[in-house]
Amino acid sequence: MNTVTFLSPVQAQLQLVEARLHAQGDDRHPDLHAAFEQILAAGGKRIRPSLALLVGDMLGAPEDKLVTLSAAVELLHTATLVHDDLIDGALLRRGMPTLNARWSPAATVLTGDFLFARAAKLAAETDHIQLMNSFAETLAVIVNGELTQMFSSRGVINRENYYNRIYAKTASLFEMTSRSSALLSPADKATIELMKKFGYETGIAFQIVDDILDFTGEQATMGKPIGYDLMNGLVTLPAIYYAEANPKDEDIKSLADGGWGNRDHMARLVESIRKTDAVEKAMMEAHQHVELALKTLAGFEPSLEREALENLAKFIVDRNI
Amino acid sequence: MNTVTFLSPVQAQLQLVEARLHAQGDDRHPDLHAAFEQILAAGGKRIRPSLALLVGDMLGAPEDKLVTLSAAVELLHTATLVHDDLIDGALLRRGMPTLNARWSPAATVLTGDFLFARAAKLAAETDHIQLMNSFAETLAVIVNGELTQMFSSRGVINRENYYNRIYAKTASLFEMTSRSSALLSPADKATIELMKKFGYETGIAFQIVDDILDFTGEQATMGKPIGYDLMNGLVTLPAIYYAEANPKDEDIKSLADGGWGNRDHMARLVESIRKTDAVEKAMMEAHQHVELALKTLAGFEPSLEREALENLAKFIVDRNI
Repeated sequence: MNTVTFLSPVQAQLQLVEARLHAQGDDRHPDLHAAFEQILAAGGKRIRPSLALLVGDMLGAPEDKLVTLSAAVELLHTATLVHDDLIDGALLRRGMPTLNARWSPAATVLTGDFLFARAAKLAAETDHIQLMNSFAETLAVIVNGELTQMFSSRGVINRENYYNRIYAKTASLFEMTSRSSALLSPADKATIELMKKFGYETGIAFQIVDDILDFTGEQATMGKPIGYDLMNGLVTLPAIYYAEANPKDEDIKSLADGGWGNRDHMARLVESIRKTDAVEKAMMEAHQHVELALKTLAGFEPSLEREALENLAKFIVDRNI
Repeated sequence: MNTVTFLSPVQAQLQLVEARLHAQGDDRHPDLHAAFEQILAAGGKRIRPSLALLVGDMLGAPEDKLVTLSAAVELLHTATLVHDDLIDGALLRRGMPTLNARWSPAATVLTGDFLFARAAKLAAETDHIQLMNSFAETLAVIVNGELTQMFSSRGVINRENYYNRIYAKTASLFEMTSRSSALLSPADKATIELMKKFGYETGIAFQIVDDILDFTGEQATMGKPIGYDLMNGLVTLPAIYYAEANPKDEDIKSLADGGWGNRDHMARLVESIRKTDAVEKAMMEAHQHVELALKTLAGFEPSLEREALENLAKFIVDRNI
């Protein structure tokens, strides 16, 4: 599956989003500007802006507001990544050096704060109070999720815990994005709810696949070692499936008591998990969420945007990074 | 001068602000909640909420919006302090342990982020887009100021640089606060501009006095050593006056080349500055800004709130912490 299949209808608008993003670093301190450019260059697929644009275009939202929203969402996402990298001490992301690898922690904290400020400013420029509200609430959800993960999720094998975590980490922002695009459109309440659900389901699927890639991906493209989550005590869906089928596995049993701190044991556990159908089952669960996302589109008139949204949802489970 | 002279008309409303602040930590992770309570308990004088309430009450703004704005402003201020303490590695603030002294840097970054999120949420709840906009812009100004300070202000003896720095650090938030209260009121443009200026001038005076206290205060109440600014390369108004009168002082001449890194020399410079009238001149300059602030109130009908605002402005130069 080529990314172009969902990007093509919004290719031109994505250029407007890029321009809007780059404009946010203008007129500021040169070092901050340079950091800003580095962060934007590290880029990624701009899947959140694409989601915002496609939903908004499908529903007839004004382009200028959609571009503003898309830039706001991408900057909020980027701000959380900058602070995440600092927190994790990560030196690479997507194979590129992080800001954290080149700057002092102090400068990295402040750059993340600056990105938050810019994201909030852009969100305010949509002139939509309800959108602004849920934008701020989403930031609180993301941060609260990270703190919960830091303090009380390590070594816990629990589906509800896992779903709460991936909602906070990823699905909350996808959900807010697609709902916000609907809010900017002449859409009725039912449509807004459907779009919110589309964002939620694709976000959940996205994070499940991300977590699967931690078992099956390649270190060079991921920018972090295989099994990184488990070594940090984060029990994701493949490990949950494995634990359900193998409750007496010594490494699984060790998790609750901090056994995730043992690198050798965790490397062994990763190997055990890869040998079973746990990864496959997790992938099936991701597919189920994509199906739920696709269902929300069923009632809309066929259009380029609807087709692209379908492709975006399918891409999420077919991607290998 | 007793703080009560400006607090008395808003005593009851400040209680509502406190309740609003505490409510922001509810329903979150217990550790985050505990951190939240610790931060709020460290408190301070709530001078920014008092400013918001007094201006708004004087101009007839609705109480619920004012309380929301006051809580938003105080949380934004608190968020920047939490990240500042982390950046400075400060273990004390106002003689109390900082969050940074008890928590990991990672948890401190996230707690600051959570406070930003809550501040933004509260700002959005004022339902006022222009206010929301300047709220986000002020955060960007504050953060950009800190980055500028970090990268290019050290050892620089320059008034314009100094004024830019204290605007970013303090006056921008005072200005935004009083202007926002006016925006929430049935006030005309001229009145909004006057209130903006009141906030600006009191904010500038506030920071000048803060900087003077770095020369004259007591370590126990300040929570940091005397001369802390100079030892970090920050040349504040008393040092600027001293440099103007003593351009050939060896320690002054050393600043541009990083001489501020020499603790003994800086301790000597602090003593030199204290022996001259540089501190007194700086204090006179703070008084001039208070006078400019008082002038903006001249055209308003006499009222309890107007009197309290006058007292608030005077308190800023009379306080000893």
